[in-house]
Amino acid sequence: MAEARAFHTETATDEEIAAEAAVVGPFTDAVRALVDATIRSTVDLDEIRAAQAEIEAITERLTKEQIPGGYGVRYRTDGTGRAWGNAVIGLRNPIAPPLTISTEPSGRASADFRLGAPYEGPPGLVHGGVISLILDQVLGHAAGAGGRPGMTGTLTIRYRQATPLGELRAEAWIDRAEGIKTWAKGRIIGPDGPTAEAEGLFILPRWARERIARGESKGPSPKYFE
Amino acid sequence: MAEARAFHTETATDEEIAAEAAVVGPFTDAVRALVDATIRSTVDLDEIRAAQAEIEAITERLTKEQIPGGYGVRYRTDGTGRAWGNAVIGLRNPIAPPLTISTEPSGRASADFRLGAPYEGPPGLVHGGVISLILDQVLGHAAGAGGRPGMTGTLTIRYRQATPLGELRAEAWIDRAEGIKTWAKGRIIGPDGPTAEAEGLFILPRWARERIARGESKGPSPKYFE
Repeated sequence: MAEARAFHTETATDEEIAAEAAVVGPFTDAVRALVDATIRSTVDLDEIRAAQAEIEAITERLTKEQIPGGYGVRYRTDGTGRAWGNAVIGLRNPIAPPLTISTEPSGRASADFRLGAPYEGPPGLVHGGVISLILDQVLGHAAGAGGRPGMTGTLTIRYRQATPLGELRAEAWIDRAEGIKTWAKGRIIGPDGPTAEAEGLFILPRWARERIARGESKGPSPKYFE
Repeated sequence: MAEARAFHTETATDEEIAAEAAVVGPFTDAVRALVDATIRSTVDLDEIRAAQAEIEAITERLTKEQIPGGYGVRYRTDGTGRAWGNAVIGLRNPIAPPLTISTEPSGRASADFRLGAPYEGPPGLVHGGVISLILDQVLGHAAGAGGRPGMTGTLTIRYRQATPLGELRAEAWIDRAEGIKTWAKGRIIGPDGPTAEAEGLFILPRWARERIARGESKGPSPKYFE
């Protein structure tokens, strides 16, 4: 099942993708601002009711034509993917902050980002689970950047201090590797230093191993899986 | 700082809270549907541009009056909290599925929920980090339900098989306790059985310990922290 889903091959040209991104990127940012306002607004309930009716009308227009399930990842033959629906990095996913992750071939990844009201757990603080969500993604990118992509096998987070909402940084790197297994480490850094540390084990999925074993150089070869 | 933030004491009556929930609950559901449509819509880019202008106008109206930061948690004197901004269970947070978590005083918690396109990682599958986000919350509720609330100290997730988008269940329970530390375990169950297992260490924060030590029975006594 996962195999069939994993191989959406990209058909759009670079120009077409750029043109689409120039429209859906700002649109998704507008929905992100609405998500934030939904939590923080203190306007009259009548105003909220009116806004609801308008939003439902917009959604009705948008859903007249839509893909049947999740966005998936559309892989190009160079191995890069368009993960626009991804919960952490997705350009088209209003749930994603989104993170823009920089990587190095040595197996390092980092991102500077801002988390506002939608990512809150304890008052004024980032939800502990959001910390783990972001670290899972960034550690996965570090593994993939080092040529060792994998699905998360185990993820351990150690929370050192509270992480305030606001400007943050995530860093990850490959710690060691053995066969199909790669261990990556990483951390979240807040205004007062590291707030959480992570270690993750990433495992190359069977379908990717078989593809590599068959020596298939044509066709998609994903650099990361989520 | 965390102390000052943590003690928003609830001032609204039960009736006022119910009246507000009856409006902001359906409104937030409408924004959730828009979030889903943002990812999946394939309508013309001109239609997307038009929708963006309308959404920006709605957001402008909603943000005319708003709270300065995150929603926080408003605690009642009985220890229950209104965590409407929470990233997993928040009634007013469009990022939250939201989970409705059932608890038992023996220290058990469970929730049945559905995850759609916004929670995707690998194609068709729940993002591994979303799994950890949900388990962090549900394990925390199990600890709190058993009278042992705490902030997450360590969280370990073991991914056993892929978790498909769709209907899922989360379960958690207190495994053992010692002083201010409580260990909880839990899992996510998909259509083909358990997909991920978790173990979390929850630690009673210093400010709550001091409050308990001072024997303050009046004032908020949170049952969980996120």
